[in-house]
Amino acid sequence: MGHVVIDVMLKPEILDPQGQAVAGALPRLGFGDFTDVRQGKRFVLAVDGPVTDTVLAQAREAADTLLSNPVIEDVVSVHALESDA
Amino acid sequence: MGHVVIDVMLKPEILDPQGQAVAGALPRLGFGDFTDVRQGKRFVLAVDGPVTDTVLAQAREAADTLLSNPVIEDVVSVHALESDA
Repeated sequence: MGHVVIDVMLKPEILDPQGQAVAGALPRLGFGDFTDVRQGKRFVLAVDGPVTDTVLAQAREAADTLLSNPVIEDVVSVHALESDA
Repeated sequence: MGHVVIDVMLKPEILDPQGQAVAGALPRLGFGDFTDVRQGKRFVLAVDGPVTDTVLAQAREAADTLLSNPVIEDVVSVHALESDA
């Protein structure tokens, strides 16, 4: 069984209130190194058999059409899960 | 400026209704290859300067204490964003 990982993030110009809430909380918990936080979505799709180029192309298309909102989000990565390799 | 990526997923034994909803929709849109879908969270934390081991350790601790619920979630990856390397 193979797995495809799809990472979706808000476009840089879009305000990220969740990320800002986390960025505001981190210093209060003693994590002062971080200047900004963005939060997005990570999908792991399972397929029977290996992750082929065809499967990756299907995953990319599914990411663009179903798993992200192209107006406010970018699909930043579509790749096979290494631990399956 | 460096970036640390933190991936958080539901533990395998935890029911994922969002993932199931996506898994149910994919065949209807013509993506019949995928047998299961899990949805999680992806955080990108920005730091001034490079991503050092100390920064990664801080990010790992922030992930365990603030960015995930250890009862139902696993921090599956904490790594520097390649595009910064």
